[in-house]
Amino acid sequence: MSYPSITDYIKSRAARVEEELARSLPGEWNVPQALRDAMGYSLMAGGKRMRPILLLAAAEACEGSVEAALPVACAVEMIHTYSLIHDDLPALDNDDYRRGRLTNHKVYGEAMAILAGDALLTHAFYAAVRAARLHGVPAERVLDVIEEMSVLAGPRGMVGGQVADMQGEQGITKLEELDYIHLHKTSDLIVFALKAGGRIGGASEPQLRALETFGTNIGLAFQIQDDILDVVGDETKLGKAVRSDEKMQKVTYPYFLGIDASRRKVEELTAIGKEAIERAAFPRPDRLLELADFLMRRDH
Amino acid sequence: MSYPSITDYIKSRAARVEEELARSLPGEWNVPQALRDAMGYSLMAGGKRMRPILLLAAAEACEGSVEAALPVACAVEMIHTYSLIHDDLPALDNDDYRRGRLTNHKVYGEAMAILAGDALLTHAFYAAVRAARLHGVPAERVLDVIEEMSVLAGPRGMVGGQVADMQGEQGITKLEELDYIHLHKTSDLIVFALKAGGRIGGASEPQLRALETFGTNIGLAFQIQDDILDVVGDETKLGKAVRSDEKMQKVTYPYFLGIDASRRKVEELTAIGKEAIERAAFPRPDRLLELADFLMRRDH
Repeated sequence: MSYPSITDYIKSRAARVEEELARSLPGEWNVPQALRDAMGYSLMAGGKRMRPILLLAAAEACEGSVEAALPVACAVEMIHTYSLIHDDLPALDNDDYRRGRLTNHKVYGEAMAILAGDALLTHAFYAAVRAARLHGVPAERVLDVIEEMSVLAGPRGMVGGQVADMQGEQGITKLEELDYIHLHKTSDLIVFALKAGGRIGGASEPQLRALETFGTNIGLAFQIQDDILDVVGDETKLGKAVRSDEKMQKVTYPYFLGIDASRRKVEELTAIGKEAIERAAFPRPDRLLELADFLMRRDH
Repeated sequence: MSYPSITDYIKSRAARVEEELARSLPGEWNVPQALRDAMGYSLMAGGKRMRPILLLAAAEACEGSVEAALPVACAVEMIHTYSLIHDDLPALDNDDYRRGRLTNHKVYGEAMAILAGDALLTHAFYAAVRAARLHGVPAERVLDVIEEMSVLAGPRGMVGGQVADMQGEQGITKLEELDYIHLHKTSDLIVFALKAGGRIGGASEPQLRALETFGTNIGLAFQIQDDILDVVGDETKLGKAVRSDEKMQKVTYPYFLGIDASRRKVEELTAIGKEAIERAAFPRPDRLLELADFLMRRDH
């Protein structure tokens, strides 16, 4: 069998994640139908599934079981999805569309969108516990995963980044402030995903540190790439209007450094991330490295 | 030493919980100040601390360590607090006051209130893991607690009850529909608290089932008592306006059964709950039984 290309790899992993996500929603018999619909509407709305794919690739890098990592891959996507639902609310970004579809609150109303987000966040922890229940991952290891999920998705992590972003709308003047936002709002959940995959795959402490360095750097690169695409991207490929940051007077990397230096920054961060992985002696690091390159080169 | 009265017991337990809650907030150095303030504003806003006190009493009933149960007692109060913050939002109940103070969004704005709720919910899982980290509760047992927390606070539990309540505003016609709301919106988190305390205290399976029966029944009794107090209570003692249900045309137990039959229902449910505890051979069941009576007789 020939080694599938990274795009084929991503496609097949995304399909596996989709399948598992559909199964991971709470059963119909004991959840109000409208709540389950609202949860599923956003959870099954497509998207890149980047975080779960990185999680599975990290498990694979350690020659760990992809099956055992799937419940936590679902958990990270639930957390990502809830954060988008709440971010889109009128009180926050007030977005009507996401990935070309109406946002959750435009379909189900604000109250249900708030509750569907709460439900997905809570259910993510249930999904994570499945790794122990269905695949025999040791309780101690799952507890480590859950602890880190609560830190990196919580007030010290993603929610903290979201608050800083909101406060930043009143005026960021330094690149360090922007980094703080990106590191917490974007990188933290990516770092969580990678380390969780590593933990389930049995990564050593130095390997977990390498995954953290990798995640921090490619997470920041991902965010800068997003900002670059908002300036130079193709609306059709992106599925959304470009130059929205400019219109919203949002301070971004291209705003501080210009496009060329921002591109160099993305390359530099990706290289730092990859180097950490290369040095950590993973048995099968290839997919992680390819994913970093893929994310750097993406045009949507 | 004489056996302290139940009111003294509640007072001292509540004080211990307050102390631990203040300590359980994420450290100041790595959380945006405004987020930490918003979380603390609602978490430290007083309240009965009924859920954590029941949790500690359940651990005590098994002769388990109250100290080891405190982290999970904090977790359940964080979940209760987040649910109140989100419930009070304009899109949901649109309440300006709670316990005589401005609601979270009236002080910090809607966006921050949504995020502070998200942060408290996520941080609750961090708090629960502390039981293992600080007090050596076995990982397997903490994982059981976390799994049940995600179920009973999630879409199949409290959030599901909240959705049913919201939908019920369009017209409840049957007592069973009202029971569904109360059982999920109120009883589920009480059941979680009791079983979590039991688990940490080392309860047997039959004892956990007894705690579940106890929680389901006193949770429902608690809610009916709330509805009764809304009709016949003293505004000064309650710290809120009475007859709000009537004004809001809210369907309640007193609406269906009248005050006298509702009171009998509270007594009956309390008796069923207590009986389950009495039959389960707990080494020290007294405080649980006294708490059930106390809640039944409360006037605020």
